[in-house]
Amino acid sequence: MSLLLAAMPGNEAKGRLLAERVGAETAALTMRRFPDGESYIRLDSECADRDVILFATLERPGAMILQLLFLADLVRELGARRVVLVAPYLAYMRQDKRFQPGEAVTSRSFARLLSDRIDVLVTVDPHLHRYHQLKELYAACTRVVHAAPLLAEWIAKNVAQPLLVGPDEESAQWVAMVAREAGAPYIVLEKTRHGDRDVTVSVPDVHRWAELQPVLLDDIISTARTMIETTQHLVAAGLQGPVCVGVHAIFANHALAELQAAGVRSVVTTNTITHPTNMIDISNLLADSVLEVLA
Amino acid sequence: MSLLLAAMPGNEAKGRLLAERVGAETAALTMRRFPDGESYIRLDSECADRDVILFATLERPGAMILQLLFLADLVRELGARRVVLVAPYLAYMRQDKRFQPGEAVTSRSFARLLSDRIDVLVTVDPHLHRYHQLKELYAACTRVVHAAPLLAEWIAKNVAQPLLVGPDEESAQWVAMVAREAGAPYIVLEKTRHGDRDVTVSVPDVHRWAELQPVLLDDIISTARTMIETTQHLVAAGLQGPVCVGVHAIFANHALAELQAAGVRSVVTTNTITHPTNMIDISNLLADSVLEVLA
Repeated sequence: MSLLLAAMPGNEAKGRLLAERVGAETAALTMRRFPDGESYIRLDSECADRDVILFATLERPGAMILQLLFLADLVRELGARRVVLVAPYLAYMRQDKRFQPGEAVTSRSFARLLSDRIDVLVTVDPHLHRYHQLKELYAACTRVVHAAPLLAEWIAKNVAQPLLVGPDEESAQWVAMVAREAGAPYIVLEKTRHGDRDVTVSVPDVHRWAELQPVLLDDIISTARTMIETTQHLVAAGLQGPVCVGVHAIFANHALAELQAAGVRSVVTTNTITHPTNMIDISNLLADSVLEVLA
Repeated sequence: MSLLLAAMPGNEAKGRLLAERVGAETAALTMRRFPDGESYIRLDSECADRDVILFATLERPGAMILQLLFLADLVRELGARRVVLVAPYLAYMRQDKRFQPGEAVTSRSFARLLSDRIDVLVTVDPHLHRYHQLKELYAACTRVVHAAPLLAEWIAKNVAQPLLVGPDEESAQWVAMVAREAGAPYIVLEKTRHGDRDVTVSVPDVHRWAELQPVLLDDIISTARTMIETTQHLVAAGLQGPVCVGVHAIFANHALAELQAAGVRSVVTTNTITHPTNMIDISNLLADSVLEVLA
């Protein structure tokens, strides 16, 4: 097997790491913009009859989606055997049905754009709600890397007496799994809805946990609204400020500063999206998945 | 025939004008971004069994291409009879073959992205070189609006004793046509290549034209390099500073200031791309074409 890996602009360093780990040649890719904003792309590496990995994490995908689609077309035209997209963060997993009449189902459109051009998609913990598996959305062959074991390992190593906290029922199963692997107890906050805007949140058995270090878990930290509110509930209930652990470090606008101001002890993420809070490296898991899916 | 027109953000005013002229209902389109940069799109207008016009000029397409593709998918899903893209300026007409090995043929990829989602494309003077017709590139039905009659009309009305000037052989046929319609003489500059970087440009029969007002024509003014150099050649040959007339007002970076500094008399464009130099309105021609192609 002769692998080639082409990293999109901004993804070169991580792309090189993954290339080393899966034994791929790093592609000689030229990508620049003309003065009018259009893109020029050239690949000076042999693609014929090789599996070609395109490496691009997809937060804020609008800025680079055209280049990625052009590159996928290019490697196909140059004779690639399989076109593999490794996207540690996958965008447009939010709008997965028409909640209101007339809404664009952007998850489906985005999946089609990619699936029309790639054979295999490898990503880390996609934000799956209504769709329970990525393959319900993507026609391409998909492989999901689960960060949970790495989160559990990091917590077990770095937090004394942790109490894992899920912000809501939806997170319960995932938090339970991380807690089991970390050998720690966990709770899930209970929401009681009295009306459209009247929701009370309570911490179950709060007195049992007063000595423990809460560890708040979520898959994506974007506006950090959920983590900020959950932190407020924990502190109001008499628990310590939590350690916040997220998989994908989007951090829209001032989210990190607001989260820090809410009284958290620290904020920790994986490096699916490059960010100062990255403490957990997913490269090895990603490499294993790529090698498995291509085997 | 019941037409609906949805204008992309930034195209609302021109979209409304076109809607009035073709008798289309203006769509109630909501398009906004989530804090993480992803787009939300909702169309509160009936699409079922109607022809739906998407109106978007495509300079710097990277910034909005995802939204446009999502919107095209949406109107299709909502039951549109035909999806018609009216793009007064069409992007990615530059790289229409692989000049060097390994280059992405972005014209073809971009055409495929659109053709997979639309039935009809209406545009103004696409920058066609190797491809002589848009249909060689676009699987969708295409209709090209030619701005030449409007340029000729503007010149005849606004320039006394015009001499039309084509910057190179490639432009000769087009300039000749505009000149004929404007009832004016024309010349095409002659380039003599002595080596890779040694090119002399001469103005034919320069003494015949000294009293006339040169009018420089080009389809796209992007960096304005061609117009600036041609202006310098005209002035060096003893002609007056030219009136510059372009179809598409891209004006990358400081192109307009540089062009003005080169000694031109004025700069005039059509409104395919909104710009302070817009003096020639293409709305009526655009409306006629839309009505013809949908008839």
